Amino acid sequence: MKIAIQGVLGSFHHQVAQQYFGESIAVFGFNTFEEVAKSVENGTVDFAVMAIENSIAGAILPNYDIIDRHDLFVVDEYYLPISHNLMALPGQQLSAIREARSHPMALLQCKHFFASHPGILPVDDVDTAYVAKVIAEQKLQGLAAVASTKAAEYYGLEILARDIQTVKDNFTRFIILQKDKPAPGIAPTKASLKITVRNEKGVLAKLLTVMSEHDLDLTKIQSIPVMSKPWEYTFFIDTLIADEGQFKTAIDLIEAKYGNVKIFGAYQNRK
Amino acid sequence: MKIAIQGVLGSFHHQVAQQYFGESIAVFGFNTFEEVAKSVENGTVDFAVMAIENSIAGAILPNYDIIDRHDLFVVDEYYLPISHNLMALPGQQLSAIREARSHPMALLQCKHFFASHPGILPVDDVDTAYVAKVIAEQKLQGLAAVASTKAAEYYGLEILARDIQTVKDNFTRFIILQKDKPAPGIAPTKASLKITVRNEKGVLAKLLTVMSEHDLDLTKIQSIPVMSKPWEYTFFIDTLIADEGQFKTAIDLIEAKYGNVKIFGAYQNRK
Repeated sequence: MKIAIQGVLGSFHHQVAQQYFGESIAVFGFNTFEEVAKSVENGTVDFAVMAIENSIAGAILPNYDIIDRHDLFVVDEYYLPISHNLMALPGQQLSAIREARSHPMALLQCKHFFASHPGILPVDDVDTAYVAKVIAEQKLQGLAAVASTKAAEYYGLEILARDIQTVKDNFTRFIILQKDKPAPGIAPTKASLKITVRNEKGVLAKLLTVMSEHDLDLTKIQSIPVMSKPWEYTFFIDTLIADEGQFKTAIDLIEAKYGNVKIFGAYQNRK
Repeated sequence: MKIAIQGVLGSFHHQVAQQYFGESIAVFGFNTFEEVAKSVENGTVDFAVMAIENSIAGAILPNYDIIDRHDLFVVDEYYLPISHNLMALPGQQLSAIREARSHPMALLQCKHFFASHPGILPVDDVDTAYVAKVIAEQKLQGLAAVASTKAAEYYGLEILARDIQTVKDNFTRFIILQKDKPAPGIAPTKASLKITVRNEKGVLAKLLTVMSEHDLDLTKIQSIPVMSKPWEYTFFIDTLIADEGQFKTAIDLIEAKYGNVKIFGAYQNRK
């Protein structure tokens, strides 16, 4: 089975791909989420694993737009606990580490660790696993990466401090994508939608009232500027589904009264 | 006057900084938006120019979170028309260009141009101005960048095709940030807010109904996962203000009934 991810191997994406699909898969890393989506669309891979909500990689917010443009389907979601680890070339003591590089948000999430280790200077870099890769390839002494245990394992680095993040119960949400619409299975408890409405006074308030009245509890909403069509607004919405019948009724009502609904997927809530 | 931007010089950010503040400014380019915000917070620069909405750099969506964490103020907004240009080392004909590199969204926005120029292969890269910089520095023949006129000017490249974007009336919205709260001036017509509410059934619908009843027309809404506090939801909202008194009444009502409001700035709508 072929799985597409964004970024280098050893990343959080890589970890989720193996936890979700098992170890006997081929994982392909692409530079951009756009290329990940293209690889699913043109059949190069069977599935993609894509981060859609977390507090590290802010760049994941546009991913629903990418899913929309490539007409992919969301078949499932997966929550990975955020775990940051300080890692370096094997054989070094913690006291030998002078600098730690990682994504700025990862470093921010470990600020208590760095406050209690003033001898280690945290320095912003572009990615978490990428720093691990560079340390391993260039055999850089005295420098550490803040990344996943998967990155340490993949690049042969030694973990000097585990779970150094300040907040311990933080998760990243991933979605599993495929090209074809999945066959109906057991009743879905969550859905990802794109709703496009005419820009009329209070239309969003009315639309959300309809959803609330049908026991659809929003877990995410994001407006997308459609600047070339100033009379239209598009929203990406994730919602919990209490009852599938109520969900269908609400979608029909929204389509009849407010605008167009595209369902990226209706799946199981894993939280 | 010192202005911070994200990215290399010659970028759209650089262009906006000079159009807004004039030519006699010192512009400092930082690798990340996080560093841009820090430079404003610690007084290294006077202002920052930050993209907040467009269809190219998706990574700008987390910028309100960065503004929030660094307690910056939004003092104004600025709309730049999106203009993509094909540029290469001087003296080359369009027919000599075999490949064009840029940000994937920039290439996508120029798809009609590439469809009518099948001899030029569009290839995804990390940024627009960065490709221009690399072509100039490494003197790469046969390769073009898709970037701003500012990038061509800054790196001494020649524009072979102007305004090659498919949609002609597309804009990027930038905001101007400073450290201190601006003194009250003329009545604001737009505001940027962070609203944190308790996760109760239909609370967002009710909150937006209050806003609609006070003639506050939303131009942007984005939910932020507060995963370590599952009982709280945070929304970043931009709204037009029809009447400043109505705006203040609505904010008071929301604070009294639904949750906490932080105003990043109340300023002039420039659209």
